Amino acid sequence: MPPAPYAADLESIRQAEQRLSGAAHRTPLVQCQAISQRAGRSLWLKCENQQKVGAFKFRGATNTVSLLDDEQAARGVVTHSSGNHAQALALAARNRGIAAHIVMPSNAPSVKRQAVEEYGAEVIACEPTLAARETTAEAVIERTGGTFIHPYNNPHVIAGQGTCGLEILEQVPDLDALVVPVGGGGLLSGICLAARALNPRIRLFAAEPSGADDAARSLAAGQLIPQENPSTIADGLLTSLGDLTWPIIRDHVEAVITVDDEAIVAAMRLLWERAKLVVEPSGAVGVAAALDNRFQSLTDLNQVGVVLTGGNVNLDQLPW
Amino acid sequence: MPPAPYAADLESIRQAEQRLSGAAHRTPLVQCQAISQRAGRSLWLKCENQQKVGAFKFRGATNTVSLLDDEQAARGVVTHSSGNHAQALALAARNRGIAAHIVMPSNAPSVKRQAVEEYGAEVIACEPTLAARETTAEAVIERTGGTFIHPYNNPHVIAGQGTCGLEILEQVPDLDALVVPVGGGGLLSGICLAARALNPRIRLFAAEPSGADDAARSLAAGQLIPQENPSTIADGLLTSLGDLTWPIIRDHVEAVITVDDEAIVAAMRLLWERAKLVVEPSGAVGVAAALDNRFQSLTDLNQVGVVLTGGNVNLDQLPW
Repeated sequence: MPPAPYAADLESIRQAEQRLSGAAHRTPLVQCQAISQRAGRSLWLKCENQQKVGAFKFRGATNTVSLLDDEQAARGVVTHSSGNHAQALALAARNRGIAAHIVMPSNAPSVKRQAVEEYGAEVIACEPTLAARETTAEAVIERTGGTFIHPYNNPHVIAGQGTCGLEILEQVPDLDALVVPVGGGGLLSGICLAARALNPRIRLFAAEPSGADDAARSLAAGQLIPQENPSTIADGLLTSLGDLTWPIIRDHVEAVITVDDEAIVAAMRLLWERAKLVVEPSGAVGVAAALDNRFQSLTDLNQVGVVLTGGNVNLDQLPW
Repeated sequence: MPPAPYAADLESIRQAEQRLSGAAHRTPLVQCQAISQRAGRSLWLKCENQQKVGAFKFRGATNTVSLLDDEQAARGVVTHSSGNHAQALALAARNRGIAAHIVMPSNAPSVKRQAVEEYGAEVIACEPTLAARETTAEAVIERTGGTFIHPYNNPHVIAGQGTCGLEILEQVPDLDALVVPVGGGGLLSGICLAARALNPRIRLFAAEPSGADDAARSLAAGQLIPQENPSTIADGLLTSLGDLTWPIIRDHVEAVITVDDEAIVAAMRLLWERAKLVVEPSGAVGVAAALDNRFQSLTDLNQVGVVLTGGNVNLDQLPW
């Protein structure tokens, strides 16, 4: 029997769902008439901004931490992140009663550092470069023997994020399509596998900032093209696809809809004003794509699910 | 057989629920661990901020408009309001294809006026006094023959708001208590009737701004005491109880928890930051009460529902 072609499958996603039961929220899937009207079709908004720690990242982190054996767990977990993965891993580790060591750039906002520390993790500051983050994380692993948990290029993370797709199709089974923001592609690839397994005809779209459009360029080129010098307000979507997420996206995603920062902020504000949901810029990219002319011109898409990926925003610094 | 003692009952609320089916949202009931921890018990947040027009008011308005006979309906509806009732009545009228005439004070924020006009209603400006609002509304009724729809002191409005209580107890049947903000008391009285009918042992609490505490003073005095010169950021809760809502509240509410504006804004911000919900000041008063020491000191309240009544906020003028 040949090996499974991808890093996760329906079976591993279903197992992840059982591990998440009781730990993660089954988030609401809501409609907002004003936004559906603007989109020209019925949109279903998956509220991962209301997931624990305010982002879908808690799903993958929890699944991955659950799968550590006791010996690994005793040595704790390590990552480098200034974003939602840091908080997610911190809480997932605390829930299992183990240590989390989070390497964060020294210029990360203090609110983000505080949030991670509130979840009981150790924060290790480093210079704000990728090289410094990686060498610092390696030193922490050396010191602690902890397990490095990648934010997306990890089979258990992908399976964990895929549970979001299972939920959406359980909540509204007859969707014609899903629109999912893409950064590293952990959420998008997990949802692709879950949704396509449950509904082979469902159409899958990625939503991406035009200032960090490596998924769009990769899909156009037919090969993984890393992101260089990204520039977008959607600070959760700066990263490149990984070698585990890319093949899944390549094979399942019909198109990548890119949107500029102006469209992202407009979608964000629309979600706040009309859907009454606090969504961060990255989390609004799917709605921005659904409102884009290129997506609106597609036919036979009456019922569309859109993932609101996160809601961690500094309320004292809003982009309007 | 003696007449029913109150303006509504379980039967009229169930009929309202059927009329609202398909027109109003069945809003989510969500949990937020961070807020529950601060409250010292498990809170269930009823998201009426995600109701159509962004507030529970759409329930009562829709039920009342549905009950007009064709002749009445043809002459339209009239009210005076600068708040959520205005938008709710405007949309409920549009859904039935009839006219709505809304008297608004000339100093009402232009965004509120625009929202009502977007729902297709005619806005009639008047001097910003209660006397001017009433005489202007009377003139509109004279001119149009329309039906005046009171925002709360109306049996069909009370029954409509009561559907929110039915939903909460369908979503989580074993709640120990409910906390509901009170202004005129339409929502509170409707929920009292629905919840007590479904669960005779449920404990019912009102949450009220200390700067508009007529319900607290009325309950203490055992008689309806109108509100004079209210002063609070919770601009949806300025009004006095009505003669239809007061007896229901008097007989069913265990206590009124009053909270000051500082506590209201803190609860509002907590809802935005941690529950990721856009809630207006009036809508956060229930959570402010649940976080108040007097409420926290009560025993045997493990599972508590709290209604977030609305989410209509000017995002350019936040109170922090």
